[in-house]
Amino acid sequence: MSLTAPLRGVVPPVCTPFGSDGEVDTGSLARLVGHLVDSGVHGLFALGSTSEVAYLTDEQRATALETVVRTADGRVPVLAGVIDTTTARVTAHARTAAALGADALVATAPFYTRTHPKEIARHFRGLREAVDLPLFAYDLPVSVHSKLSAALVRELAEESTLAGLKDSSGDEGGLRRLIVELGGRDGRDRGAAPRFSILTGSELTVDAALLAGADGVVPGLGNVDPADYVRLYDAARAGDWARAAAEQERLVELFAMVDAGPEADMSRSSSALGSFKEALRLLGVVGNGVTAFPQIPLSAESVAQVARRLRDAGLPPVR
Amino acid sequence: MSLTAPLRGVVPPVCTPFGSDGEVDTGSLARLVGHLVDSGVHGLFALGSTSEVAYLTDEQRATALETVVRTADGRVPVLAGVIDTTTARVTAHARTAAALGADALVATAPFYTRTHPKEIARHFRGLREAVDLPLFAYDLPVSVHSKLSAALVRELAEESTLAGLKDSSGDEGGLRRLIVELGGRDGRDRGAAPRFSILTGSELTVDAALLAGADGVVPGLGNVDPADYVRLYDAARAGDWARAAAEQERLVELFAMVDAGPEADMSRSSSALGSFKEALRLLGVVGNGVTAFPQIPLSAESVAQVARRLRDAGLPPVR
Amino acid sequence: MSLTAPLRGVVPPVCTPFGSDGEVDTGSLARLVGHLVDSGVHGLFALGSTSEVAYLTDEQRATALETVVRTADGRVPVLAGVIDTTTARVTAHARTAAALGADALVATAPFYTRTHPKEIARHFRGLREAVDLPLFAYDLPVSVHSKLSAALVRELAEESTLAGLKDSSGDEGGLRRLIVELGGRDGRDRGAAPRFSILTGSELTVDAALLAGADGVVPGLGNVDPADYVRLYDAARAGDWARAAAEQERLVELFAMVDAGPEADMSRSSSALGSFKEALRLLGVVGNGVTAFPQIPLSAESVAQVARRLRDAGLPPVR
Amino acid sequence: MSLTAPLRGVVPPVCTPFGSDGEVDTGSLARLVGHLVDSGVHGLFALGSTSEVAYLTDEQRATALETVVRTADGRVPVLAGVIDTTTARVTAHARTAAALGADALVATAPFYTRTHPKEIARHFRGLREAVDLPLFAYDLPVSVHSKLSAALVRELAEESTLAGLKDSSGDEGGLRRLIVELGGRDGRDRGAAPRFSILTGSELTVDAALLAGADGVVPGLGNVDPADYVRLYDAARAGDWARAAAEQERLVELFAMVDAGPEADMSRSSSALGSFKEALRLLGVVGNGVTAFPQIPLSAESVAQVARRLRDAGLPPVR
Repeated sequence: MSLTAPLRGVVPPVCTPFGSDGEVDTGSLARLVGHLVDSGVHGLFALGSTSEVAYLTDEQRATALETVVRTADGRVPVLAGVIDTTTARVTAHARTAAALGADALVATAPFYTRTHPKEIARHFRGLREAVDLPLFAYDLPVSVHSKLSAALVRELAEESTLAGLKDSSGDEGGLRRLIVELGGRDGRDRGAAPRFSILTGSELTVDAALLAGADGVVPGLGNVDPADYVRLYDAARAGDWARAAAEQERLVELFAMVDAGPEADMSRSSSALGSFKEALRLLGVVGNGVTAFPQIPLSAESVAQVARRLRDAGLPPVR
Repeated sequence: MSLTAPLRGVVPPVCTPFGSDGEVDTGSLARLVGHLVDSGVHGLFALGSTSEVAYLTDEQRATALETVVRTADGRVPVLAGVIDTTTARVTAHARTAAALGADALVATAPFYTRTHPKEIARHFRGLREAVDLPLFAYDLPVSVHSKLSAALVRELAEESTLAGLKDSSGDEGGLRRLIVELGGRDGRDRGAAPRFSILTGSELTVDAALLAGADGVVPGLGNVDPADYVRLYDAARAGDWARAAAEQERLVELFAMVDAGPEADMSRSSSALGSFKEALRLLGVVGNGVTAFPQIPLSAESVAQVARRLRDAGLPPVR
Repeated sequence: MSLTAPLRGVVPPVCTPFGSDGEVDTGSLARLVGHLVDSGVHGLFALGSTSEVAYLTDEQRATALETVVRTADGRVPVLAGVIDTTTARVTAHARTAAALGADALVATAPFYTRTHPKEIARHFRGLREAVDLPLFAYDLPVSVHSKLSAALVRELAEESTLAGLKDSSGDEGGLRRLIVELGGRDGRDRGAAPRFSILTGSELTVDAALLAGADGVVPGLGNVDPADYVRLYDAARAGDWARAAAEQERLVELFAMVDAGPEADMSRSSSALGSFKEALRLLGVVGNGVTAFPQIPLSAESVAQVARRLRDAGLPPVR
Repeated sequence: MSLTAPLRGVVPPVCTPFGSDGEVDTGSLARLVGHLVDSGVHGLFALGSTSEVAYLTDEQRATALETVVRTADGRVPVLAGVIDTTTARVTAHARTAAALGADALVATAPFYTRTHPKEIARHFRGLREAVDLPLFAYDLPVSVHSKLSAALVRELAEESTLAGLKDSSGDEGGLRRLIVELGGRDGRDRGAAPRFSILTGSELTVDAALLAGADGVVPGLGNVDPADYVRLYDAARAGDWARAAAEQERLVELFAMVDAGPEADMSRSSSALGSFKEALRLLGVVGNGVTAFPQIPLSAESVAQVARRLRDAGLPPVR
């Protein structure tokens, strides 16, 4: 499904369910994709951080992406994360993603190595030249430990290297400046980057991002409650900001499930991913809530907390 | 002017104009306070970071605060920053501020030393007990290098140690979680902290913060264009979010003046403070745009950039 | 006592004992100074971070410095920390220190505010011009959150703005580069900065720093066991590196007392300072091991751990 | 070549020379290995950060490792870096390395994802169980953004999960504490971890690390001047610390070549790797000094600086 216009709307980063053998549970993944598409999401982001892409072997990545593309079946576009340390390795993933039918690529700046804005620009340009798919920059300093500057993103947007930005930097002020520089919320043609798409990964401030002029959102919590993110998005598009904010508040309350795992015992990442996956299991979408090794699994008590959060949000567990 | 209800609205952090001798120019400061109050702001924050408080001697701090209080003359409340490394030193500033007529205090967590949430709690409690004025916590990790957790702020709010929070952490998602936990945008009584005031220092996302339920804003740029922040605030209170966003966009464009000083030559802080002060000089509000030693002054070329930004925003220089 | 040659040797950062009323216990402080000088230390650093300077009011700082100067009585030079956010405030402390008889000043880069190398250079130059005492730069990124570059230190050394460096950056490789650039371990005239003194604050690698060509050490643990740091220094000066390393190992074991306070309950800083002060109390040097508010005091169990470390090091408690 | 005793000595992290086509130049790599082994190094670390491992495809990694193993030909042990984000991906590299004949593995903590000490322990244990080769932990916070604690390393050493540590954390004090806890410089049996090997990656303080009791060094600069690192090591083993320090000083001066590339134009990493590789080209060891895409190449002026550093060190370019 080609991206002929700026990508807009709710684009969840799809979780990767595992079986008890630690391999990708393609049946559960297909059900998850169905759950998302049926809820009205506007796109899918496969192999993003929420997919535990950093824990997947190349084979598992291919299995997951193939399943998402096949199940989406052209109903919504599929963006594929191509997460690796530098250009040559990322390009290899990008070629696989293209072959498997991804509609667009999402790549970070180089990581593990120290890098530089001039090197980051070469990285995105080299990748764009190597594989002919729309390319989104993934700004994720918490993982790659550098921040894409507004100036760099704008340059790469205006020269058409980038088709969009997935901003998970948490720098909402910086994002606002970028949006204004690109033409602002009313400047939908976005000057020299008319089809550039800006997606926020800040799932707790989506109403704000849409008010500011962002095109959409990539919410990890959207795996669990895609319908509410769609309602939030629809309210925003209709200009009903009070309603958008009310939906956002409800999602903020639900999001508190990510605190289920105690900090003394596991990373914040494992707690968040584990709670999303256990919620999907409790809701009957996937068969198993386990996260990838070596992440610490949630305890029974933590899972009970997740269940309580679901009930409080009117999403009663079926298991 | 006592704070009998949650403080709400636009509360600019007042700049400190200097004379050519490097001392506080009280005449210019009084004019600046008049400029702000006449524009309809709802409070004044004296001796905040934007005042260059870290550069002021104790005598200069007293002169500046005394001038702000005297000129405000009870028309709006005056919050006083009490910025120092730990409790005993902060308490000394707080006693001075109380004697000079401040209506509330604003204090950070301890800095220079490494600290701990339990120590930060003791710090705020000890300060609140020592000086009987409403106390705002100032969350400013870029300066103090620790972040106030939502759990800690909530605990101190519910026990009435804190009357409010000035959030300059840039963590909009975390702020949203705090607001929701305290009762949300519609929960104006804020549960166990009914009069707790939440002010954002993120001057580029004020529409978003107000939509989320924040009570007001402390914008450094509000020195230069207080009237537009008041319009933004009024639009938000009226539920006209599209208009609020449009005012915010205009202010984002004006804010670009902070880039006037080249990064190769000065800190981002000096560039921002210098541009605000030069703008005030160009607008005829203060006599001199100089910043405190050892900050690098803006070049003539940089000042010309500031003037251009003012003109573009419809605020033509009179000098 | 004027610093006519590069300062060399063991220069402990003197702790500040408090009475049960929280005020400086000048009797205990005088005993501590005696304990240090009698052990053969080569200088004293008053009002350094280990003194809890960030917790002391201006009056307490003056009391502490006056006591150290009076008790030292010219037997060893006294360096005075002048710790505050920026130049004007630091200069005020420097004038007080000069009046109280300090032999040299120790100042950090500006903190709380963001700064820039050009502004840091102005800061040190302005301070040096304002107060006519030898000036040491205190490189302490953990507190001030910027690092003094080797290029900047060298420039300020060669122009005689700086008389020395107290390096607590933990960047031993960078320090090695600076020493080599200044003439190296055999280049005692240090090229264009012939009397520049380099003191390390890294108390666990003093043998290494001396082998590299550092002039001395400022060890917090030196409050507790000054004699062993003097033995380490003497062994190094005699070229007996194996013996220097053995003394260092013994001190590394003793240093483990800093872990006495649990991380869940207090900052690492409070645990370290509390253990040093409790050790001094156990050894009969000071009357009270309490740290300044709002630091969390060590529990009885933690104090018992400190006592065990002392015994293991052959320093049996007398209390 | 099995590691029957703790690995000791100079173990350079071998650079990966590229041809003008960007592929591994196996002829140059073999010459480089010969240059190192002939200089008396005690081991080789293939696929470390200095090899640009983060820039190499899986095929290029295999080619490089195979070339190093084949050329070393059992004369010295070959350690293989297995650098990837988490356990499953690292294990795949480890299996390849074992098949290609590596004598030991070197793995970091998980990166890109946020992690936790308990998860890091599971990671190393899982890897050790999956592939039966001695395993070194690679402590490299600048790349992976977490630090291995001394407590964790000690636990993994004493349970024989780890055969050694390659410490590139720059935390020399922490390393000293670890060495002392493991038995110290004279405690060569190292208590419960009798064959544990500690290698420092801090190439500017090798004399200090050896004095402290480290077993050896992994110096990137050792590609350029392996013989001097061997002389440094031999002097240290002979207890001639003054000579060791003099050799270290010479190497510190040579190391200044890493500043050849201007910070405004490239990352510090590209400048360092580029200078090492250009030095090898100038010395006639490799055919081409180019670094991997998207790193910025050194300018002719920068290469001239490298050449000057070589000449100053008595290593005159032959090209």
